[in-house]
Amino acid sequence: MESKKLDLHTREAHPSPTVVDCGGVDVGGGTFRIIAGPCSVESEGQLMRIARAVKASGATLLRGGAFKPRTSPRSFQGLGAEGIRLLLEAKRETGLPIVTELMNINHIGLFNDVDVIQIGARNMQNFDLLKELAAHTKKPILLKRGFAATLRELLMSAEYLLEGGNPNVILCERGIRTFVRETRNTPDLVAVPVLKELTHLPVIVDPSHATGAARLVKPVACAAAAIGADGLIVEVHDDPSHALCDGDQSLTPGQFDDMARAVGAFVDTRLSLARSNHPTT
Amino acid sequence: MESKKLDLHTREAHPSPTVVDCGGVDVGGGTFRIIAGPCSVESEGQLMRIARAVKASGATLLRGGAFKPRTSPRSFQGLGAEGIRLLLEAKRETGLPIVTELMNINHIGLFNDVDVIQIGARNMQNFDLLKELAAHTKKPILLKRGFAATLRELLMSAEYLLEGGNPNVILCERGIRTFVRETRNTPDLVAVPVLKELTHLPVIVDPSHATGAARLVKPVACAAAAIGADGLIVEVHDDPSHALCDGDQSLTPGQFDDMARAVGAFVDTRLSLARSNHPTT
Amino acid sequence: MESKKLDLHTREAHPSPTVVDCGGVDVGGGTFRIIAGPCSVESEGQLMRIARAVKASGATLLRGGAFKPRTSPRSFQGLGAEGIRLLLEAKRETGLPIVTELMNINHIGLFNDVDVIQIGARNMQNFDLLKELAAHTKKPILLKRGFAATLRELLMSAEYLLEGGNPNVILCERGIRTFVRETRNTPDLVAVPVLKELTHLPVIVDPSHATGAARLVKPVACAAAAIGADGLIVEVHDDPSHALCDGDQSLTPGQFDDMARAVGAFVDTRLSLARSNHPTT
Amino acid sequence: MESKKLDLHTREAHPSPTVVDCGGVDVGGGTFRIIAGPCSVESEGQLMRIARAVKASGATLLRGGAFKPRTSPRSFQGLGAEGIRLLLEAKRETGLPIVTELMNINHIGLFNDVDVIQIGARNMQNFDLLKELAAHTKKPILLKRGFAATLRELLMSAEYLLEGGNPNVILCERGIRTFVRETRNTPDLVAVPVLKELTHLPVIVDPSHATGAARLVKPVACAAAAIGADGLIVEVHDDPSHALCDGDQSLTPGQFDDMARAVGAFVDTRLSLARSNHPTT
Repeated sequence: MESKKLDLHTREAHPSPTVVDCGGVDVGGGTFRIIAGPCSVESEGQLMRIARAVKASGATLLRGGAFKPRTSPRSFQGLGAEGIRLLLEAKRETGLPIVTELMNINHIGLFNDVDVIQIGARNMQNFDLLKELAAHTKKPILLKRGFAATLRELLMSAEYLLEGGNPNVILCERGIRTFVRETRNTPDLVAVPVLKELTHLPVIVDPSHATGAARLVKPVACAAAAIGADGLIVEVHDDPSHALCDGDQSLTPGQFDDMARAVGAFVDTRLSLARSNHPTT
Repeated sequence: MESKKLDLHTREAHPSPTVVDCGGVDVGGGTFRIIAGPCSVESEGQLMRIARAVKASGATLLRGGAFKPRTSPRSFQGLGAEGIRLLLEAKRETGLPIVTELMNINHIGLFNDVDVIQIGARNMQNFDLLKELAAHTKKPILLKRGFAATLRELLMSAEYLLEGGNPNVILCERGIRTFVRETRNTPDLVAVPVLKELTHLPVIVDPSHATGAARLVKPVACAAAAIGADGLIVEVHDDPSHALCDGDQSLTPGQFDDMARAVGAFVDTRLSLARSNHPTT
Repeated sequence: MESKKLDLHTREAHPSPTVVDCGGVDVGGGTFRIIAGPCSVESEGQLMRIARAVKASGATLLRGGAFKPRTSPRSFQGLGAEGIRLLLEAKRETGLPIVTELMNINHIGLFNDVDVIQIGARNMQNFDLLKELAAHTKKPILLKRGFAATLRELLMSAEYLLEGGNPNVILCERGIRTFVRETRNTPDLVAVPVLKELTHLPVIVDPSHATGAARLVKPVACAAAAIGADGLIVEVHDDPSHALCDGDQSLTPGQFDDMARAVGAFVDTRLSLARSNHPTT
Repeated sequence: MESKKLDLHTREAHPSPTVVDCGGVDVGGGTFRIIAGPCSVESEGQLMRIARAVKASGATLLRGGAFKPRTSPRSFQGLGAEGIRLLLEAKRETGLPIVTELMNINHIGLFNDVDVIQIGARNMQNFDLLKELAAHTKKPILLKRGFAATLRELLMSAEYLLEGGNPNVILCERGIRTFVRETRNTPDLVAVPVLKELTHLPVIVDPSHATGAARLVKPVACAAAAIGADGLIVEVHDDPSHALCDGDQSLTPGQFDDMARAVGAFVDTRLSLARSNHPTT
């Protein structure tokens, strides 16, 4: 008798939570990790200053865009290969594993020493890229939710990676498009517990893109910690008003430090609640 | 020379936070209050059991619907005047001030001993009701956001009450309509800090309507505490599967108790962070 | 044995299309009617000039707001009773039946000679108003869809009127709220054929509110004719740049004449297609 | 002195409408073209029967999916190269130019004899694919709007193609995601006249994906004709209940013939109105 194959992302197929080893930093399974760094890598000095600052405040992974998906072909498209080179230098110097976006499978050769490959919201349903990526690498993939993707669609895009042979997938909620005008996007925080029911994969939140405004990053980050996310990815810039992209939503190192402290307190509360609910574990 | 009059809901017009006295319970100004009770008042026994239970778990106001806005004219429309009578009895017995919805100004006479008058999401832009209500009473008004209202629209509806002479307005975020299919509504939690910037009025969150699912109420309630809300309004029923309305999103008293404990821990964390940021206050 | 009562708005309950007699003008059942006039009645001269102009271009009903639902309490709230008086004068002079909005059942006495009572989008789920209105009058009701109402919700609001004893209900699609920024609302034109499947009630379209831009009214009006609507309600002003409300979306009499001619051609095409499909009827 | 370069898609940069030659069929500039065919190429017999039928009813281009973007990796992914081969055979037999989707630049070699290359909604912001495609070919590109893309975003994606050296771009509105539950998507028909103001590129409508329901394709197609679209792309299947994808929204050849006749009548009306407005042209 034929048995129906379970989707690999489901709790039924894999009851225990997946923990993804990101260059020595585990994501998922009860910890809370903060990925931080600039929207775009702009220069060695910029990246190094930001990397040192976010590490000092508790970030355990460094993000930075080298290949940038921009709405307009006239906008800054990122430093490309040079951006990757600078990220690797920052990794050597700070010891932070690095996360950066891949937009084209032909660039995969440049990602050999990258720790986590990000697939952006606009490529969440670029199924050929997902298939090719899974065929090429078992490196951790940070898969961002498309801004009008249902949770089922996000999970089925993850399924392309899992089916393709890469089990190291981290999901990321980054805000959805709604009628609301007062924020750039609407953070869909309830997606976190809903995803946690449906899948064993880690789920992190991007409060920078979700809100589009630096002053809203801290409250959304705290809420993400309280609602059960496995971590954050946050944009930080040491001179937001001159950032080549996303300056409006970038925290200064000082604001990031303040955010990280508040988030840490909420994470501690969550862990202590979890312990008191399961005293023997 | 004429000076432009400031809107009364703005921080410019009223820099300090408004604290609304709800039958002896203050809402706003740094505290965190939980309003709880059944969607609809169904019977004396049902209401009393739930009222005692939520009080024991830390709720400080009792909610219950007597006049119910239902999509269909064939659905249960509430017990009306008899529902109010039962609420007042529960108030006498438990000492909890009561919150219940008004849909028609002609019913105002029944609300003399009600502590907080709720205006539902569907009537948020029923401007004649807002005008009449402000003219009739200075009782606290709990104004729920329409499910496709922008924050500016919510604030301008509050302005109808403030301009009409009633300064005791509490705002409530209760979920918005989006393309998402996995939850009944999308809780717009970032609305809390955005509203806090724009207005001095207290802002609470309704995790029951925002999610439509009992199992999601606790995580959203915790996130609401972390993001800075002034309180919650939560649906509780002692027999959800037989509730006359909203059973799917009602907590049992046991689930409510668990939620209240977790929320309390996050509120403590928030207060302690606030104190450490402002050590002398 | 009890039989389940059919909802009165359904095709099952009432297979043939409802035709509503609006002061001598039939709406529904295959005709196409244009209701036109200013957003707000501002003065006798303004109303009379517009009424004569729209009549000359083929409008068969006159619209004009006397009681206006405005987001802000500081905005012009309409002329009230005096607005109704001016509409009745315009009716006497032009012979056009009049359509105007009711926001409060206590105003019903002023509507004795009004031909069609409009319930606005913001009051679509003001169920007490719907109940009271059905109890007071069998006059035609123009029920506008809330800007985030599903079609089922619109139909159930109509059901309140039908159940209450008033069978003369006309539905109106007026644009919904979406993420789109380039138009004020998104005209949901496919709602017309979907509603036509579900109900026997007439369905008209408001291209003025649906788009928020005068230059888009004509194309949307033509599409509404082609997709099967029973008519239009259109805002016209003889001096849009000085209109007290909705100037941006008001047509001049000249633009209205142009629109009416184009719409008429598409209606003729539709009728001729219908005849060729049903040659013997 | 440096002058600011105009975006190539704008009316300012290119006042007259672009007419795209699609294998001998001109799209844009006042004509109305219907592209029709199956969602997926399934077999030679299936494709040939449908191709002959749609040609007989007035379609002037044949569509058919060979590479299919599917939400789930377990769904039928298309016949791939074999699908292209069958499309080319159908082209030889019927003379209809063919339109099919490209998902991966590495497949471009298979598209040498394809007349129009489609970029699907999910790849609208796959900027690397857009850049690579423009670098490889000047063939007509049918660019579908992402289901939550603003019109500006659609136009900027077109700009990637135009800037890259391919001026032969056709835009396609295919429905957007909204809160509405009664249709799969909401056809955003007003996007047609808004796009026509902003760009010289042709704009067509996909009523099949926009509605998700075969019975709604005809009314939306008629509305698209009336509102000023340059054409349609419609899914047709000779056995919808057994289609490998999108059966619910596929017309039978008989339904397509009926639709084409109705649409033709509305197009004639539109052309005749245009002539009477500009009698000398």
